[in-house]
Amino acid sequence: MSTRVSANELHAFCMTALRTAGVSEAHSQITADVLVMTDTWGVFTHGTKLLRDYVKRVRGGGLRTDVEPQVVASGPAWSLVDGGSCLGHVTSVFAMQDAIERAKKSGIAYVGVKNSCHFGAAGYYAWLAAKAGLIGIAMANDIPSVAAAGSRRSVTGSNPIAYAVPNGNGDPILLDMAISTVAGGKVYAAYQRGEPIPDHWLLDSEGRPTTDSSLYPANGALTPMGDYKGYGIALLIESLSGLLTGASITWQVGSWIGSDPAKPTDHGAAFLAIDVNTIMPSDQFARRVNHLVDEIHQAPTADGVERLLLPGEREWNHRRKAMAGGIDLPSDVVAKLVGLADDLKLKAKWLGV
Amino acid sequence: MSTRVSANELHAFCMTALRTAGVSEAHSQITADVLVMTDTWGVFTHGTKLLRDYVKRVRGGGLRTDVEPQVVASGPAWSLVDGGSCLGHVTSVFAMQDAIERAKKSGIAYVGVKNSCHFGAAGYYAWLAAKAGLIGIAMANDIPSVAAAGSRRSVTGSNPIAYAVPNGNGDPILLDMAISTVAGGKVYAAYQRGEPIPDHWLLDSEGRPTTDSSLYPANGALTPMGDYKGYGIALLIESLSGLLTGASITWQVGSWIGSDPAKPTDHGAAFLAIDVNTIMPSDQFARRVNHLVDEIHQAPTADGVERLLLPGEREWNHRRKAMAGGIDLPSDVVAKLVGLADDLKLKAKWLGV
Repeated sequence: MSTRVSANELHAFCMTALRTAGVSEAHSQITADVLVMTDTWGVFTHGTKLLRDYVKRVRGGGLRTDVEPQVVASGPAWSLVDGGSCLGHVTSVFAMQDAIERAKKSGIAYVGVKNSCHFGAAGYYAWLAAKAGLIGIAMANDIPSVAAAGSRRSVTGSNPIAYAVPNGNGDPILLDMAISTVAGGKVYAAYQRGEPIPDHWLLDSEGRPTTDSSLYPANGALTPMGDYKGYGIALLIESLSGLLTGASITWQVGSWIGSDPAKPTDHGAAFLAIDVNTIMPSDQFARRVNHLVDEIHQAPTADGVERLLLPGEREWNHRRKAMAGGIDLPSDVVAKLVGLADDLKLKAKWLGV
Repeated sequence: MSTRVSANELHAFCMTALRTAGVSEAHSQITADVLVMTDTWGVFTHGTKLLRDYVKRVRGGGLRTDVEPQVVASGPAWSLVDGGSCLGHVTSVFAMQDAIERAKKSGIAYVGVKNSCHFGAAGYYAWLAAKAGLIGIAMANDIPSVAAAGSRRSVTGSNPIAYAVPNGNGDPILLDMAISTVAGGKVYAAYQRGEPIPDHWLLDSEGRPTTDSSLYPANGALTPMGDYKGYGIALLIESLSGLLTGASITWQVGSWIGSDPAKPTDHGAAFLAIDVNTIMPSDQFARRVNHLVDEIHQAPTADGVERLLLPGEREWNHRRKAMAGGIDLPSDVVAKLVGLADDLKLKAKWLGV
């Protein structure tokens, strides 16, 4: 069961919802851009499905509509940004744009962020860099939801990280991942669909494997990808997003869904940009990327596999179809949007409300 | 079965071997430092065990003894280093030192490397940065040994990546990992011990799981950590270490063990350093790291687990014991060192030769 909607129509609905909640035209535009792009990639756990909860926090006052993110400290190749608790998407776009500008002059730049909130799909910000010809890396911390080897409860956030590498005129290589075996959104989506989960995704409150999706997040911890590796990468992300930025870390971070919507969550984030053209002529780099892409596409495949995909290739193909024929929103996303329309007394024919 | 030797004695043996093979005093010193430090961490797959094969390549001429690594292009926050096919450890220390110096001025720096070779444990170079008060990240590409989802053979290198975060006067947080489920060295060590391996480490030449450690590397591909995640991270490392540096990529890289020892391997590598003190006062950062470390040490543990460890904590504890009481070299390492002594007609009482 899915509902088809054009990207434009979905974007207009997001704009109306955000504007109705009191978000400025400019911030609404940025947020809608991020969420709809994410849905066109088919990453429905991190797209417009989340808008209802963002809007709750906007209306509660924990997400502010009267501030702009600001650079509070900087050098040529780095800056620290205070998001002022406006929408995390707005702060993240601001921060990655700052990283891109600085990297174009310095070759590389680091931008750390405090006073942010949940920023949706990390891949969007990495893609912003690749669109401008740079290699982009985006990451954020979050309230703990992931176990470490030997722990009884969550120790680190699922701490998303994404990167994008420009590929000439082709689709950027784009990976967006949580450091957990699977993203919490996938467990939550299974719970909403009333489905059990594979037994290596989640641990119960005693640290034992479980298939009960309802335990997440209150009574279950996601497993870290590759055991000590995912845990270790989580702490690198915490270091760059939280420790070095002055943002809250681990249990100090507010739950963007579960905590008092009147209070800021103070998520941290980090954005890295490396300007390809400063280091190697862009066309030479593009040829080298193309060579690698061709090699992977031509690699021998296992029985039943047509060809290997680059990271992001499935998402770019999904987006082309979505832009041509509309986005097929899964029922759990539609239910959230119907709820949002109800909260704000909005009408939307395509949603049936 | 292990053989105990002091770090000093092991270092002296490495120096003698390298000097005998024609390596300069300075290059021998750096290489011995890296290899012995790695053994003191208990990371025996990447320490002095590898010296015999490095020396073969030195004597073959593929690793050159008459060159120094050089910066061939640079800006304030980045450089490209040509290793000139000298020992990979020498080039890597040079490159990370360059990254550290640039980051102290710019906040962050990227140093890309070409014409390098196998560099041993990536963690050593990340640690160099942490020792100087910076966050360090080190990575390298390698000839493919790891499958991607749906592939029939290896597609990417096991592409090591390590990071280190300074922790005031305490041990740095230190993670060193391959993007495969386990490092190839572990499969090879199992083969040398005549042991089978768990069935999720390796795929056979048809892409099927296998426990036969003898298939690696010629007829088996390591599995990527976390499936598409490990594969995706491998391509980020390839991008920063290979594509952007001008080094060889994937199948162009020479096997540092298996290829003609007269030829360079042209591995690529990348080193990132972020100067904490430029961005946040070091003591403030140290307090924040300490807070995180304490929180993890005090976290509730599963039954039978005394306390959670930070990445690197096991290695730092191993090193303290090794420095106090000697290094217990496993028999596969000892066998390699005996072979090396035989190759070079060296005497070493502690080795029994």
